[in-house]
Amino acid sequence: DFCVGDLNGPVGPAGYSCKKTVTVNDFVYSGLAATGNTSNLIKAAVTPAFSAQFPGVNGLGISIARLDLAVGGVIPMHTHPGASEVLVVIQGTICAGFISSANKVYFKSLNKGDIMVFPQGLLHFQINAGKTQSLAFVSFSSPEPGLQILDFALFANDLPTDIIEETTFLDAAQIKKLKGVLGGTG
Amino acid sequence: DFCVGDLNGPVGPAGYSCKKTVTVNDFVYSGLAATGNTSNLIKAAVTPAFSAQFPGVNGLGISIARLDLAVGGVIPMHTHPGASEVLVVIQGTICAGFISSANKVYFKSLNKGDIMVFPQGLLHFQINAGKTQSLAFVSFSSPEPGLQILDFALFANDLPTDIIEETTFLDAAQIKKLKGVLGGTG
Amino acid sequence: DFCVGDLNGPVGPAGYSCKKTVTVNDFVYSGLAATGNTSNLIKAAVTPAFSAQFPGVNGLGISIARLDLAVGGVIPMHTHPGASEVLVVIQGTICAGFISSANKVYFKSLNKGDIMVFPQGLLHFQINAGKTQSLAFVSFSSPEPGLQILDFALFANDLPTDIIEETTFLDAAQIKKLKGVLGGTG
Amino acid sequence: DFCVGDLNGPVGPAGYSCKKTVTVNDFVYSGLAATGNTSNLIKAAVTPAFSAQFPGVNGLGISIARLDLAVGGVIPMHTHPGASEVLVVIQGTICAGFISSANKVYFKSLNKGDIMVFPQGLLHFQINAGKTQSLAFVSFSSPEPGLQILDFALFANDLPTDIIEETTFLDAAQIKKLKGVLGGTG
Amino acid sequence: DFCVGDLNGPVGPAGYSCKKTVTVNDFVYSGLAATGNTSNLIKAAVTPAFSAQFPGVNGLGISIARLDLAVGGVIPMHTHPGASEVLVVIQGTICAGFISSANKVYFKSLNKGDIMVFPQGLLHFQINAGKTQSLAFVSFSSPEPGLQILDFALFANDLPTDIIEETTFLDAAQIKKLKGVLGGTG
Amino acid sequence: DFCVGDLNGPVGPAGYSCKKTVTVNDFVYSGLAATGNTSNLIKAAVTPAFSAQFPGVNGLGISIARLDLAVGGVIPMHTHPGASEVLVVIQGTICAGFISSANKVYFKSLNKGDIMVFPQGLLHFQINAGKTQSLAFVSFSSPEPGLQILDFALFANDLPTDIIEETTFLDAAQIKKLKGVLGGTG
Repeated sequence: DFCVGDLNGPVGPAGYSCKKTVTVNDFVYSGLAATGNTSNLIKAAVTPAFSAQFPGVNGLGISIARLDLAVGGVIPMHTHPGASEVLVVIQGTICAGFISSANKVYFKSLNKGDIMVFPQGLLHFQINAGKTQSLAFVSFSSPEPGLQILDFALFANDLPTDIIEETTFLDAAQIKKLKGVLGGTG
Repeated sequence: DFCVGDLNGPVGPAGYSCKKTVTVNDFVYSGLAATGNTSNLIKAAVTPAFSAQFPGVNGLGISIARLDLAVGGVIPMHTHPGASEVLVVIQGTICAGFISSANKVYFKSLNKGDIMVFPQGLLHFQINAGKTQSLAFVSFSSPEPGLQILDFALFANDLPTDIIEETTFLDAAQIKKLKGVLGGTG
Repeated sequence: DFCVGDLNGPVGPAGYSCKKTVTVNDFVYSGLAATGNTSNLIKAAVTPAFSAQFPGVNGLGISIARLDLAVGGVIPMHTHPGASEVLVVIQGTICAGFISSANKVYFKSLNKGDIMVFPQGLLHFQINAGKTQSLAFVSFSSPEPGLQILDFALFANDLPTDIIEETTFLDAAQIKKLKGVLGGTG
Repeated sequence: DFCVGDLNGPVGPAGYSCKKTVTVNDFVYSGLAATGNTSNLIKAAVTPAFSAQFPGVNGLGISIARLDLAVGGVIPMHTHPGASEVLVVIQGTICAGFISSANKVYFKSLNKGDIMVFPQGLLHFQINAGKTQSLAFVSFSSPEPGLQILDFALFANDLPTDIIEETTFLDAAQIKKLKGVLGGTG
Repeated sequence: DFCVGDLNGPVGPAGYSCKKTVTVNDFVYSGLAATGNTSNLIKAAVTPAFSAQFPGVNGLGISIARLDLAVGGVIPMHTHPGASEVLVVIQGTICAGFISSANKVYFKSLNKGDIMVFPQGLLHFQINAGKTQSLAFVSFSSPEPGLQILDFALFANDLPTDIIEETTFLDAAQIKKLKGVLGGTG
Repeated sequence: DFCVGDLNGPVGPAGYSCKKTVTVNDFVYSGLAATGNTSNLIKAAVTPAFSAQFPGVNGLGISIARLDLAVGGVIPMHTHPGASEVLVVIQGTICAGFISSANKVYFKSLNKGDIMVFPQGLLHFQINAGKTQSLAFVSFSSPEPGLQILDFALFANDLPTDIIEETTFLDAAQIKKLKGVLGGTG
């Protein structure tokens, strides 16, 4: 039936091992009820309920997260290596889009109640396109979708600047500027 | 990358065949934006965005639906044969629960922002537990989760009353009463 | 090649962990050889060889069970949340059927040697339709198909009567009568 | 819910495309009811109900076949490239076995009601080990398990004798003898 | 057994439909035998044998490609949305790496015969780290792995500059410079 | 993202449990860099990088191996029960082929740079068809493809000669001769 994740047990390719005793509280999670803290660089917050936060979804092929976007907020260009995503707008207006393997761009302004699907592994983004706080829920086709935010992947670690230059064609000055902002070294 | 369903093409075990030309509108759907019509027996509405309604999710392992529950509304006992489900409460208070293969019951009253997971194929239900209209979105681990509502499966078709009696131990009078309500024959 | 389940090791979403040393006896099981005890309410018995009983099938995508139906016996309305099923009649005559998500009923009387398939997660039943003991074997597309018998799910636990009423439209008297028979409370 | 195979429609990696209109007869098959013809070289018969014979299992992850073994009958060394198998003995005594990737042999004499599992893709065999006709049903974890019988693969086609010699170390005389029996050329 | 893709038939989520008649030439492909043309911006070439080029792999969960890197050549930062990858160096020295969801960088200089695995959907790159032409073969866990090259995704289409700015924090001048190089507009 | 195998932890149907701390060396392997030892009966060597040798591929749906064939060398008739395979010729000329479930033979002489796909679970072989040492890399659609070499399965263990006779129709003398060569008993 189910396999609520035991976060202290062994983990394998299919997920966490199963908790032996469960109650209804293993299947319910309130961690998405509060507005995420958007006082940050991107004026936005992603609050996940993946199997690490909500072990009830372990092994069940699904998970969810909450997106809060303050005015001017943006979920920067990112991918989920392990899942497709469906977004539903609960409040505000969100400009969302993705780019296909064929380098074609698909983007649109979404209003309350609109949904959009982002196929697995493709670069995509969400921007608050309105003048008020926005809220969306995003669901994933895996309990562990992963999240790779482009800027953090490139500029928030010790990937050498010359390798970034060679593999992205960005100018060294641009790279160093963003490393400065995001805490990268090298 | 993706395979937007061609509802007029051949269908196979993995879903619809792929549409040849797509635009952003194939990945966006506004059919969940409006409140469902709850002027019915259950004072509730399920509005699906499965691959038949929203072909953009075809082949992507995910889909979504909208639940509206008027005061006193209920999504009756049902299963999704092909998917696990995550519910997020957007408005109101919902009492939701499921029953495991071990016949154990897991149910709880959920408030705005709470999420609950319902493992694949198990009987579950949602009841408006508050004094106002409730709204939830439910996501599924398949573009074609299916939906089998217990009462419609038993009482809204021509399954003979004596077979229902033998296989559910319900009294014939009870069966006939519900067939009357739900339009069943036999 | 294989992963015979170690019933004492950790369990994960994909099944039991693998036993380190195996012999041919891990791949053979005699627990289905004897007629099940049909001296019960349903005059029938389901004897499973799922991974918990027959760890040799762990991870192999298949399992099997034995159905014995005495005269008047019935396997009540039930689902397997995790597998499709194929039944083969070995002895006697069995009336078997299932109900689709579209609430259409498919049932037929099966004779010795006939087979029938029951798609994953759908309500189905088997009734001894003859005047002699019946025997069938049922195979499943998973080593852990699960088994949710409708009456036990509804009436053999502490699911409150008023929730059952609201979610099934059954009358309280009917619910209490069956709770009495099946040991339910609340 | 299901996707009964349309044998005349396009076929894809996941199986046949789905028949548009179905009845209960699409889910029931009587082709395994009769004893297979064992008047042949192996004194045995395999009667399959794979998706090509029984399109009701298309896309459902399961299929079944009937094995008849006359006295002295044998299902020769073979593999199913696409499925694991569970055998249940209905009548007689069958010596069954398989060989693992580690070249270890697992075989045992099985009596009525015994079951044995054969992991996917491994060489295995069944021999009538008794003095009466034997009957078994074998279930598979795929609607299209495939069946590769070693002798037919090697000796019943135009695979050149020298290639067989080089890749099996069998003597040319032995190869030619079996090609003679099984209709091979080259 | 197999389902050689019919490039003219319907395509579904599981791949192309199956060609009706096949010969050995459907399972063999010589398109990777020649050195790719590296007279280009990246001094490198990716020659794929995915199901579109080599329909023999359709439905079989695997594909392959050839990487040629001239002196100074680089396969720029990219992802495969649908597959994990294993690279084997045939000639030369290649500096290869990937970045995890946790923004950790894993890179190393690989010599002839070394292999490296790149998990599904993560950003990765390969750079000719030697003074001679390099050659590698890369295999994928899907017949349709997809390939999204970061620079082409961002700068070789009509994604508006202001959206790129907002979602990547790159400076407009940098974006326009690379759009100029790669043919992007907007 | 990934689950590098912990060879000392529990193993399950989906593979090894995940190592807690990883470095780039977990994703790189040099064990295929050296020519395999072909001073043996088959004048050939298979050097695997499956999850047991290269735990970095655990859970990622892919693995690789190196084939060395001296002059006159052959990889004898074998199957991979758990994966399809793609071969790429790096050096020399290799005659490779497989046999389908329909007993049809597909074989061809492959030159440098040619690739060939071998569908999962089917008997296949590779022969050095040239006058020089040959080298190929073979990739698999699973981190644990398994390898069952026909001659070792039949003649390198204690499978009784009379069972081999009955299930393969080989002559006892032939069987005993090959048992002598390959170390089998019984």
